Amino acid sequence: MKKFLNDPDDLVRESLAGLEAAHGGILRVQVDPLFVVRRDAPVPGKVGVVSGGGSGHEPMHGGFVGPGMLDAACPGAIFTSPTPDQIESASRAVDSGKGVLHLVKNYTGDVLNFETARELCEAQGIPVEAVLIDDDVAVKDSLYTAGRRGVGATVLIEKIVGAAAERGWLLPDLAALARALNEESRSIGIALSSCVVPGAGKATFNLGPEEIELGIGIHGEPGRERTAIKPARELVEYMIDAVFTDRPLNRGDETIVMVNGMGGTPLIELYLLFGEVQRIFRDRGVRIARSLVGNYITSLEMQGCSLTVLRCNGETFRLWDDPVRTAGLRWGV
Amino acid sequence: MKKFLNDPDDLVRESLAGLEAAHGGILRVQVDPLFVVRRDAPVPGKVGVVSGGGSGHEPMHGGFVGPGMLDAACPGAIFTSPTPDQIESASRAVDSGKGVLHLVKNYTGDVLNFETARELCEAQGIPVEAVLIDDDVAVKDSLYTAGRRGVGATVLIEKIVGAAAERGWLLPDLAALARALNEESRSIGIALSSCVVPGAGKATFNLGPEEIELGIGIHGEPGRERTAIKPARELVEYMIDAVFTDRPLNRGDETIVMVNGMGGTPLIELYLLFGEVQRIFRDRGVRIARSLVGNYITSLEMQGCSLTVLRCNGETFRLWDDPVRTAGLRWGV
Repeated sequence: MKKFLNDPDDLVRESLAGLEAAHGGILRVQVDPLFVVRRDAPVPGKVGVVSGGGSGHEPMHGGFVGPGMLDAACPGAIFTSPTPDQIESASRAVDSGKGVLHLVKNYTGDVLNFETARELCEAQGIPVEAVLIDDDVAVKDSLYTAGRRGVGATVLIEKIVGAAAERGWLLPDLAALARALNEESRSIGIALSSCVVPGAGKATFNLGPEEIELGIGIHGEPGRERTAIKPARELVEYMIDAVFTDRPLNRGDETIVMVNGMGGTPLIELYLLFGEVQRIFRDRGVRIARSLVGNYITSLEMQGCSLTVLRCNGETFRLWDDPVRTAGLRWGV
Repeated sequence: MKKFLNDPDDLVRESLAGLEAAHGGILRVQVDPLFVVRRDAPVPGKVGVVSGGGSGHEPMHGGFVGPGMLDAACPGAIFTSPTPDQIESASRAVDSGKGVLHLVKNYTGDVLNFETARELCEAQGIPVEAVLIDDDVAVKDSLYTAGRRGVGATVLIEKIVGAAAERGWLLPDLAALARALNEESRSIGIALSSCVVPGAGKATFNLGPEEIELGIGIHGEPGRERTAIKPARELVEYMIDAVFTDRPLNRGDETIVMVNGMGGTPLIELYLLFGEVQRIFRDRGVRIARSLVGNYITSLEMQGCSLTVLRCNGETFRLWDDPVRTAGLRWGV
């Protein structure tokens, strides 16, 4: 195993120290329990927005903490859920009296631990609403999952809901917005290679030299099928068909589209994929009004990509366009 | 070879089509000859800043075209210099009458072709100044290079000089600034793996399962030595020693530091490296006043990193902090 690390057990903590060193103007890292929090938290009069999950998906979630997005992120060990005390402490740290929204990717451990944390918060008088994100159309149940997995939509929802929270929306309205956005989101991923979890020291799964996996999960969970590598335009057609079959889009619909890299895929390939996506969307009369291309929800150094499509209306675009200032996503003031 | 592409010969062009599709608000892609140019070029009263080089280093350079950075970028084939007619056409497209600055990484093909393009421009009455960037301390001469290679400093120089051009600096002053910044910049890289050039279909070089290469070039050119993988803190010490030996820094000096990924290294590792860099800088009394951590000058899907250190003064920081709006680097308005 060749990785830039010292002891695998220290990877998450040491990486977060570097995150704080690089972005100390917008966030700080709290240890024991471990979480990343906006430097100016709690922001008076604002609902706190908290997410979290296993590490290894950077920049998600710690890289999305900052003005206009998350108030706090709870990083678990690699591909392992954060504990309830991390989530409870982070929620307390960002509560200004307006309550806290939990954005939870649908994995069994995350769901249970966020639920326990919610109970702990409510016992202290902190109102919490939790919204599950389950946009991955690849498979219905999976390793670690009852129902669908939560993947790329998390990035888009954190951005949009974060903007609404910054504008002063109240907790029930934010939760309703997050649920509506999740309803309108669909994703699917493809792996060209596995990743190596540092503690394990070997590949999570193995693919042949010309083999790829369609519908891969972000922890290397099995997808729909393995097949030989195909031209990019066929793979993009496959992904768009998978997404559109599950959530039909009509001519004239407007969308935000993310072409996401899994960590080991170069940007030159991701932009090629986005070009193919745009061509097919144009043929189908569906408009890509906003887009993200890059590494946003990764699986360590896995080579692969995912496509996320979110159907939007004017209000969503206004929130999308609001300023955001995080390590992983930044625009506006 | 598993990559997201159609025909290897179309990779660069198709990827640029995707870049334009995603960032059409700030840039357009001109074909025949091929270059990326600011949508609003030529900007009246402004010197045009043009760079370019082989593709495969994305987001450099096309991802750095936009307000506050480059006016145009000329992409060659993968790891191959752009041709003089690309550079000449791009220079003409961005010249507002104030002349054009060429920022050239020191590789033999780039140097020759930018030089020919400069002569072609000057024959048409367009003043051109060219500045060579040669910050890589690893080796003196190399494959494709007389003297040192130009690597990570290019990103920092394009940002800072781009800001100065946006402020209305004149051509001789911009050239002097770029040369001074290059003098103050040093870099070195480490590879954990090779990359695969699509046209070749196989790894450029081979490393053993526990072997790494110190001082690697961004095209896989040989570095200083091969060694067994070591803990990150030892590798960071090695890189800092290499940089500081070549360009000593004193207590109290202020710097911009970039920890750059080569394309296949996950962000969790890059932030860990940055944390180690900061610790050692603090011990040595040198301040990291600004930083970049991420994939900025890559080698396709190579796993590896590079460290770039730029010694700065107050004016440099003001230019650094100016707004920039490109695909690959974005802040401010």
